[in-house]
Amino acid sequence: MIDRKETKQRMSRAVIHNNTVYLCGQVAKDSSEDITRQTITMLEKVDTLLSDVGSSREKLLSATIYVKSMNDFQAMNAVWDAWVPEGHAPARACVEASMAREELLVEISVIAAL
Amino acid sequence: MIDRKETKQRMSRAVIHNNTVYLCGQVAKDSSEDITRQTITMLEKVDTLLSDVGSSREKLLSATIYVKSMNDFQAMNAVWDAWVPEGHAPARACVEASMAREELLVEISVIAAL
Amino acid sequence: MIDRKETKQRMSRAVIHNNTVYLCGQVAKDSSEDITRQTITMLEKVDTLLSDVGSSREKLLSATIYVKSMNDFQAMNAVWDAWVPEGHAPARACVEASMAREELLVEISVIAAL
Repeated sequence: MIDRKETKQRMSRAVIHNNTVYLCGQVAKDSSEDITRQTITMLEKVDTLLSDVGSSREKLLSATIYVKSMNDFQAMNAVWDAWVPEGHAPARACVEASMAREELLVEISVIAAL
Repeated sequence: MIDRKETKQRMSRAVIHNNTVYLCGQVAKDSSEDITRQTITMLEKVDTLLSDVGSSREKLLSATIYVKSMNDFQAMNAVWDAWVPEGHAPARACVEASMAREELLVEISVIAAL
Repeated sequence: MIDRKETKQRMSRAVIHNNTVYLCGQVAKDSSEDITRQTITMLEKVDTLLSDVGSSREKLLSATIYVKSMNDFQAMNAVWDAWVPEGHAPARACVEASMAREELLVEISVIAAL
């Protein structure tokens, strides 16, 4: 009834219920990089997780994006807009918030369909 | 299986799956106004979106409200409390966060039932 | 179709739809206490609410945690890691944000399965 992927003590990378998948907050692969590269590698991780559970970026339902500084809003959006498949954009909210580590510039929470 | 409304490259205004609708983050119609007017027009936009997909404010499941300053918490709540239909209040969380534009004082993410 | 628990004008403590329960943002029982005690009593309230609707911490799908200061991240996680049942961790995101009252150090939004 509930299916979990890559479950550790603190969180699962993905949790599936009712044909809906909830991803844990994804951040950049390398947090020393700039907002463009952080957004690119963050979204690559989203792709991998979605693919692992049989979903894809065509099936995003909702995305909540946290940026450390709204000064990075345009640069983040440039990567985001190129990544979203035309005609398949999710509902989205984006607010400013700091993350678990000082150097992280962007994080995303995703809900997708299977 | 997934139904989207007003889909642009960056986001869809509403995404429907499993009889559940996810709205994109809604903000005031006119961001030059005060917190009371911003909350009123933000919730008018929620009404319109919900109505467009066959839902309504009676069917809210969850709302996440971001306020730029907790100094506006009471004024926002006064509008919110009057807007929520008696007996139909959603689960709600409200935290402080800045939004995409400096002048925005409040934003809401909504999940509702169809 | 939609079932609500402890509904007041502003929010319901829990809203159920499609075998999924959305909890309102939970905070500490006593906000004068430190991050460890605030996290413990916040999660006790999550337990109570989930139990009241026939769910449990074994059925968490997604958790969004807001901490007032990332300086409290480790102390919050120590409580969290001990609370999550092994093999049942939800998807999770954690960002820094202030809450409705100055003294609140942590808040959690939960989506769970019934």
